Amino acid sequence: MAGKIDARLKELGIDIPDAAAPVANYVGWVKSGNTVYVSGQVPLKDGEFEYQGKLGDKYDVEEGQAAARLCAINLIAQVKAACGGDLDKVTRVVKLGNFVNSTADFTAQPQVANGASDLMVEVFGDKGKHARFAVGTNVLPLDVAVEVDGVFEVA
Amino acid sequence: MAGKIDARLKELGIDIPDAAAPVANYVGWVKSGNTVYVSGQVPLKDGEFEYQGKLGDKYDVEEGQAAARLCAINLIAQVKAACGGDLDKVTRVVKLGNFVNSTADFTAQPQVANGASDLMVEVFGDKGKHARFAVGTNVLPLDVAVEVDGVFEVA
Amino acid sequence: MAGKIDARLKELGIDIPDAAAPVANYVGWVKSGNTVYVSGQVPLKDGEFEYQGKLGDKYDVEEGQAAARLCAINLIAQVKAACGGDLDKVTRVVKLGNFVNSTADFTAQPQVANGASDLMVEVFGDKGKHARFAVGTNVLPLDVAVEVDGVFEVA
Repeated sequence: MAGKIDARLKELGIDIPDAAAPVANYVGWVKSGNTVYVSGQVPLKDGEFEYQGKLGDKYDVEEGQAAARLCAINLIAQVKAACGGDLDKVTRVVKLGNFVNSTADFTAQPQVANGASDLMVEVFGDKGKHARFAVGTNVLPLDVAVEVDGVFEVA
Repeated sequence: MAGKIDARLKELGIDIPDAAAPVANYVGWVKSGNTVYVSGQVPLKDGEFEYQGKLGDKYDVEEGQAAARLCAINLIAQVKAACGGDLDKVTRVVKLGNFVNSTADFTAQPQVANGASDLMVEVFGDKGKHARFAVGTNVLPLDVAVEVDGVFEVA
Repeated sequence: MAGKIDARLKELGIDIPDAAAPVANYVGWVKSGNTVYVSGQVPLKDGEFEYQGKLGDKYDVEEGQAAARLCAINLIAQVKAACGGDLDKVTRVVKLGNFVNSTADFTAQPQVANGASDLMVEVFGDKGKHARFAVGTNVLPLDVAVEVDGVFEVA
């Protein structure tokens, strides 16, 4: 009895991993009322960092988009946990905060962030359309290429 | 039958443009309950970027404030759209997130952010008093000088 | 008739200062519904900046953690004001946004942020477990080492 979003994920060939458990005194998500706040997610796949380095140096826009997409998959993993496994409870992707590890002359952060934005709309349709910011930073944890946090509305 | 805030904007000589429509899979604002989340706004006027470059290099504090003020005008444009055109529905400017494109030795981000903060209070009075952060970044999209996102409470 | 959290703070030997009053058109906190948004806090103690400089240059991880802990104490000062002095009204630390003033090759922002995360759990127990992001920036206001903002749920 898979839900609509699970069916859509299957159709897209996207496998949502188990939510990564933080190794410190914070958590992957907090639910307050109908709002779920998800911690900043990084391009981690099967326990390995997939993109470590800066946009404008090691990575180009297309690779940055793949990194952002991977962050978005990890955001969905967290919100799935917050929904007790049922992604159909997500009524809106509210906001994404996109931090892009950039050289000082790389200015295509919005295009990189589209990797996360596009995934949300592929998966959630109109409910996936969100507010966002996309900014550059001179460095990110473990030198990952992109970090994305999120706010979701759930039923 | 203009509203109070419209009258105040006229008094201040501030023209609120139509909300810019994002060119990707995200939106200018999302309303969740009584909270409106507005996407990061940049110093765009009549379709042109007005401030492109870094504080501490191309721009000084006063120019940065003008850039932040322009971001704030674009935030108001988005929240106006979220309110169906009626800015009197804004019950509180809740939070502004200020990202200032800075050289590594420019440390007056709060003064720059005041360009946005002051505008909110000029327009909304006590309801315009908000929480905020103001941080530096090594680069912003299209090298704009300032990016500001916002959270608003609406009736 | 001290509250439970006041008693815990005393046990930990932590003195919560009066909330610093911003010197501009913004405020230390805004309450919207049951959510309190706290402005970005810096490592300010008794009116003096305690940590000014970058991680990876002037400061190491341990010093960064002390700076983040001081930011967290100042966050608690603000939320205490928002609760009319009664910290027992805090039902959840929802989210912390950690900005770490970093050289381009310092990548231990999460460890630095633990200085704030650990304090929240020391003080609030399970209610202190929060979502968070931790990112690097090339510079912060007045060159402080860390800036942390917060979202809290209150009764």
